[in-house]
Amino acid sequence: MRPPETAVLLRRICLVVAYDGTGYCGWQLQNNGNTIEAELNRALTALTGTATAVSGASRTDAGVHARCNYAVFDTRMRMPAEKFSYALNQRLPEDIRIRRSFEVKTDWHPRKCASRKTYEYRILSEEFPDPLQRLYAHFTYQPLEVDKMRRAAAFLVGEHDFKSFCSIHTQADSTVRTVTALDVEQQGSLITIRVTGNGFLYNMVRIIAGTLMETGAGKYPPERVRDILEACDRKCAGPTAPARGLTLVRYEFL
Amino acid sequence: MRPPETAVLLRRICLVVAYDGTGYCGWQLQNNGNTIEAELNRALTALTGTATAVSGASRTDAGVHARCNYAVFDTRMRMPAEKFSYALNQRLPEDIRIRRSFEVKTDWHPRKCASRKTYEYRILSEEFPDPLQRLYAHFTYQPLEVDKMRRAAAFLVGEHDFKSFCSIHTQADSTVRTVTALDVEQQGSLITIRVTGNGFLYNMVRIIAGTLMETGAGKYPPERVRDILEACDRKCAGPTAPARGLTLVRYEFL
Repeated sequence: MRPPETAVLLRRICLVVAYDGTGYCGWQLQNNGNTIEAELNRALTALTGTATAVSGASRTDAGVHARCNYAVFDTRMRMPAEKFSYALNQRLPEDIRIRRSFEVKTDWHPRKCASRKTYEYRILSEEFPDPLQRLYAHFTYQPLEVDKMRRAAAFLVGEHDFKSFCSIHTQADSTVRTVTALDVEQQGSLITIRVTGNGFLYNMVRIIAGTLMETGAGKYPPERVRDILEACDRKCAGPTAPARGLTLVRYEFL
Repeated sequence: MRPPETAVLLRRICLVVAYDGTGYCGWQLQNNGNTIEAELNRALTALTGTATAVSGASRTDAGVHARCNYAVFDTRMRMPAEKFSYALNQRLPEDIRIRRSFEVKTDWHPRKCASRKTYEYRILSEEFPDPLQRLYAHFTYQPLEVDKMRRAAAFLVGEHDFKSFCSIHTQADSTVRTVTALDVEQQGSLITIRVTGNGFLYNMVRIIAGTLMETGAGKYPPERVRDILEACDRKCAGPTAPARGLTLVRYEFL
């Protein structure tokens, strides 16, 4: 005999989510405009037949992409945990895919875990924009000296007060963060800034990218980045680079 | 004194065009649906102030991309030839870019020149589709053995009657073509088929891709491709692979 529905244990399922952020107003639910979170809730509610909402790990901004964001939701639905990925992908738009689903403890949440995230910021530095890269790389016709960008990047590795690299709207208590790696790679006209850390302030990666681009363009010497850090003043750093170049590429739990 | 307009010499300008074919019904003008040619004519007519039409080199299909298609148009507009690229890019949508513009002889046409074209067909072979690659690669969850694809590809290099690799709707007189190179590369889960030749039949590259995928999936041994060629029968080859995986990457005039 099947137990009554209330006897079915509440489980917590974790999702690994990849998305093209081009068409979305970011991760987090919005009153105006579609978001990744809204699409996931819609698909989950349709699948489970009961109002179900996810809680996400990284609330990426409008236009930012991800290869592996995390989210959890609670459900009484009797479906093997690993099947949720397939079932949800059938109900999600093509620009959002669940790469993996698995059960976690009911009190586990990705935001409560020590973690290390890696972002990539891609820049196409060429005479003309490439239509096939326009959605996933920021275009500039300015030539950039990658060697200068690397020397500037070196000043940002380690534990620092990143107040200069944080949008003024932040709600963070402390602006101290640790950047464990910050590399600048070049493949032809494509430059990739890859940054790993235990946490990032609001717009921090995009302001780092904007500042490294100014260094690469020769607006100031790489050593200036040390002064920018010490100033603890957003106005000293470069502009916030556009969202389309940014992708959350790795999320590791420590 | 400026000479009257009729005294201004008619010049022929050549454009190197890159585009993301996702949103278009192919290159060629259509009664229903937008095309690359229509967008170019619209931008040129607006720029020159007189009805102006391009004539293209490769009439790519709906959904197919290009890094370097060619087109020519005739104009009496007095603008340095190399400036047309900048002026047109300001009037074209973001998914079409003119990479270069230059003057050619008034009787020169890219389709009348001996040329060598290179196409890439990209396949993502993974458990789940990647939202960030969905527009420019064909997704399959089938594992593909690249070594088998390479062995099959070798049978297609050289001068052959490619009738089996041509859609039945072709208007071509002869179905003999020369494939000068056909390589299969793998980078992680991304497989790239790169084919170079002096001319291609209708859907030829996509049917080659569909056939190599069937070989890679183990549906038949690589040697079968020799029999498929000899049969001169479209029904013997694999399916026409989807357009989104195909990009015209190089166009050389000999």
